[in-house]
Amino acid sequence: MLGVLGGMGPQATADFLRKLVERTAADTDQRHMPVVVWSVPQIPDRSRAILEGGESPLPAMLRGLQQLRAMGANAAAIPCNTAHHWYDALAARTDMPILHIVDAVADELRLRMPEAGRVGLMATRGTIAAGIYERRLPGSCRLLAPDGADLDDLMEAVGWAKGGHLERARTVFARIADGLRARGAQAIVMGCTEIPLAPPPGDDLIDSTDALAVRCSKWFAQSHWGVAA
Amino acid sequence: MLGVLGGMGPQATADFLRKLVERTAADTDQRHMPVVVWSVPQIPDRSRAILEGGESPLPAMLRGLQQLRAMGANAAAIPCNTAHHWYDALAARTDMPILHIVDAVADELRLRMPEAGRVGLMATRGTIAAGIYERRLPGSCRLLAPDGADLDDLMEAVGWAKGGHLERARTVFARIADGLRARGAQAIVMGCTEIPLAPPPGDDLIDSTDALAVRCSKWFAQSHWGVAA
Repeated sequence: MLGVLGGMGPQATADFLRKLVERTAADTDQRHMPVVVWSVPQIPDRSRAILEGGESPLPAMLRGLQQLRAMGANAAAIPCNTAHHWYDALAARTDMPILHIVDAVADELRLRMPEAGRVGLMATRGTIAAGIYERRLPGSCRLLAPDGADLDDLMEAVGWAKGGHLERARTVFARIADGLRARGAQAIVMGCTEIPLAPPPGDDLIDSTDALAVRCSKWFAQSHWGVAA
Repeated sequence: MLGVLGGMGPQATADFLRKLVERTAADTDQRHMPVVVWSVPQIPDRSRAILEGGESPLPAMLRGLQQLRAMGANAAAIPCNTAHHWYDALAARTDMPILHIVDAVADELRLRMPEAGRVGLMATRGTIAAGIYERRLPGSCRLLAPDGADLDDLMEAVGWAKGGHLERARTVFARIADGLRARGAQAIVMGCTEIPLAPPPGDDLIDSTDALAVRCSKWFAQSHWGVAA
């Protein structure tokens, strides 16, 4: 059973569950992946903790993981990129594997861009500052991230997406994606799970939420049905 | 904290979570409703149990409810209409209130149709045969349900919706809704949570998934913030 540590944010969690079902080959309810979800958004803000030394979300996340384990989960997924700043700390405190969202994106990047190249990263200020993608993506990827006023705008638009103002957010995301393309990005990672709620146009986009769903579905197929993915 | 007994089916569960977030007034993640979800679709088929005396889903549903309670849920919702055939049996075995999906639809019907009238019911054969709506809706509602070949087609289309073949399902749902309108329905309840995955056109439709989300959101506002809904 998969445990989903959600609530960061709650709509991104629902989006992840939808993609998880879409990415699982199953013709009846009963063949779908059993999932337990802890979507308790009363978790301190992740970017603020990274950037300003705000209250750490680690204890709340750890409590969620322990609840999922107690319910019978034997692997976990966290549909929030910024939360992966605490990946090592979480992984060290549980005996469940946690499927890493950047590894999932790397799988997708290998399919899309087999050669070395430039990858645009649309992500929160916390994710960028913490180097969550930089430290884990293959060295062949040269990361380009928005900065200055663009990053301010992106953060504001992430807030709009969280608040359900999707069209307003989409316009900003589209402008930022265009800026990354102009700087030579050959693929653009939506490296914050709020962005796919209002995805900008373009077939060069990689959805981290969907990539994580694909990785979870492979885990399920291998562990449950004994099917190599 | 709300406990969601899901997995019937898994995509309907994701749809419910999306609507739950949309129906909750919150400007930050932290003000959203804490939710725990048990979405384990390995539950015997509900319609088959009602119609053919197939294996009862009650033990599996009861186990899910107990898990939600153990995680700290203090109310539960079940985004599956047919599962409400076992509502009394479940409610008798837990100390949590279970927010009934038909009561949620009744709230919405009262707003839309304050006078007595004819209400179309698009629902599974199990829901119709068990009289789940008939026994719980106010007496002022005269229910009209599809029968014969229409009900066969509806059941097939519910399967398509579960399998992600949404456009094929939507065409059938639209035809059945038109049939109910021709019989005089003044409002039509999508009384199976797979139907809103591929909703037919029309502003006379009432979405049972969304209605349940509204009811849960009111429960949260009253119980958590002390706000009367």
